[in-house]
Amino acid sequence: MVAADRGSFLDRLQDGVVRTGGALCVGLDPVLDALPSSLTRDEQGVRSYCLQLIEATAPYAVAFKPNAAFFEVLGGHGWPLLAEVVGEASRHALVIVDAKRGDIGPTAAAYVSAMFDFLGADACTVNGYLGGDAVAPFLVRPDRMAFVLCRTSNPGARDLQDLRLTETGEPLYLHLARMARVWNDSPPTGTVGLVVGATWPRELAAVRQQAPGLPFLIPGVGAQGGDLEAAVAAAGGAHGPYLINVSRGIGQASLGPDFVGAAAAAAAGYLTRLQLARSTGQDGVGGGAES
Amino acid sequence: MVAADRGSFLDRLQDGVVRTGGALCVGLDPVLDALPSSLTRDEQGVRSYCLQLIEATAPYAVAFKPNAAFFEVLGGHGWPLLAEVVGEASRHALVIVDAKRGDIGPTAAAYVSAMFDFLGADACTVNGYLGGDAVAPFLVRPDRMAFVLCRTSNPGARDLQDLRLTETGEPLYLHLARMARVWNDSPPTGTVGLVVGATWPRELAAVRQQAPGLPFLIPGVGAQGGDLEAAVAAAGGAHGPYLINVSRGIGQASLGPDFVGAAAAAAAGYLTRLQLARSTGQDGVGGGAES
Repeated sequence: MVAADRGSFLDRLQDGVVRTGGALCVGLDPVLDALPSSLTRDEQGVRSYCLQLIEATAPYAVAFKPNAAFFEVLGGHGWPLLAEVVGEASRHALVIVDAKRGDIGPTAAAYVSAMFDFLGADACTVNGYLGGDAVAPFLVRPDRMAFVLCRTSNPGARDLQDLRLTETGEPLYLHLARMARVWNDSPPTGTVGLVVGATWPRELAAVRQQAPGLPFLIPGVGAQGGDLEAAVAAAGGAHGPYLINVSRGIGQASLGPDFVGAAAAAAAGYLTRLQLARSTGQDGVGGGAES
Repeated sequence: MVAADRGSFLDRLQDGVVRTGGALCVGLDPVLDALPSSLTRDEQGVRSYCLQLIEATAPYAVAFKPNAAFFEVLGGHGWPLLAEVVGEASRHALVIVDAKRGDIGPTAAAYVSAMFDFLGADACTVNGYLGGDAVAPFLVRPDRMAFVLCRTSNPGARDLQDLRLTETGEPLYLHLARMARVWNDSPPTGTVGLVVGATWPRELAAVRQQAPGLPFLIPGVGAQGGDLEAAVAAAGGAHGPYLINVSRGIGQASLGPDFVGAAAAAAAGYLTRLQLARSTGQDGVGGGAES
């Protein structure tokens, strides 16, 4: 069953940027061992944590990004709870389920239905190692988006993604960025985004140059050490389009009883920095949706 | 919670080869639209299909490979059902959960626990695009195994995996095979396998040359057009180690009321071909565990 058309992801992202003045994505990573001390370390604690975090940070967020791993690890209760969290977050903002799925065509179609029909996500993350025919099933819904892993935020990103190709002399991740642009131009257009880590601003700028109009999902700011201002500049400044994701920097701003207030304050702080960076930052390499 | 030591995956694989005379892996892909006509197209039908398929083909199988996508698409009931199917299959043979997970370290650790603790799988499939630090959490349990995607069975495998690297002139998938060998040599040793499609026997032989001792999980025989005998020869003949996976060729051998008998007959047929190919086949490129 395909849900009613929601309007394009990109249009809704731009509405969110107008509403908040920034492009903050709040990551929902309910790690059991890092739940606030006032909550029980079980699925009831996870539910309470996620719902309170959503409520507290919604005024500052254009999107929420729950990571499927922290729900799957809860066992049989995890998936229904993830669906509940996606539903609640959807009342306030876009929802990107971070699941990094990827499989051959017929199997990918089942993941697509799990993400977009059962969970009801607006977007999900996808691993493109299997190639275009494995990504294609994620791209057929005009009102949803697939963010394909391009240059990730972890140190191991170097192992495969940075390897240079004989054909062009370029690293693999730039080749993938160009392929993603081609995928994005096939109807329905505008259903492809890229995941590019904030921890590598130079690589981020290079990806922006290859894929001017594609929305970026940018993790790695905060706990992973990525610099917000450098990432905004590299991703296109005021033009973008992009979402800056912060997970631990907001959700674990405090592990004490006032984690909710601390998360709201942290989200407000990140949004202010984002607004400032957008208004004063350079346009990176000059590649933005409108440039 | 880490379960009690089960003995190494490779030892148990070799026990299974001694027991059956072959290395057949039966894929469990319960696609709702392709369930036998006698079953309901819901989770009850999926349960019945999987449990009957396991029972009927267990005498011929060294392993079962349920694909997580076809359970996730069932919504909230999917994960508990997948756990039940893994538990039932484990009574007879090794279980490889095909989920192709991959994420940065702390998140990967949650996937590892979901796969090995909650589901209780002996092995799972992993996507290595994020690099060594993302794969590492899957490799720390001496009694489990991670099969890393190397050269997949689909046409799109060409898009990224075949790209040649300036450093060595080799395609990406061979570089990954060598990295996997290095990962496998770190303690605990013997926890890394590779996914290599049967649809590309030449590439399969090249991977075997780079990774002589690593077990291969080989999909693509049957519906995808891979040739069983060519795959066995390329993967190391009598030596291996490998598992030849057949999904639709067994599970959809008949969609009529006697799907169980048809599946058993198909599994027996594939096992006979495997036994013959092992005894008469060449050793491919001469690379086997014992050569």
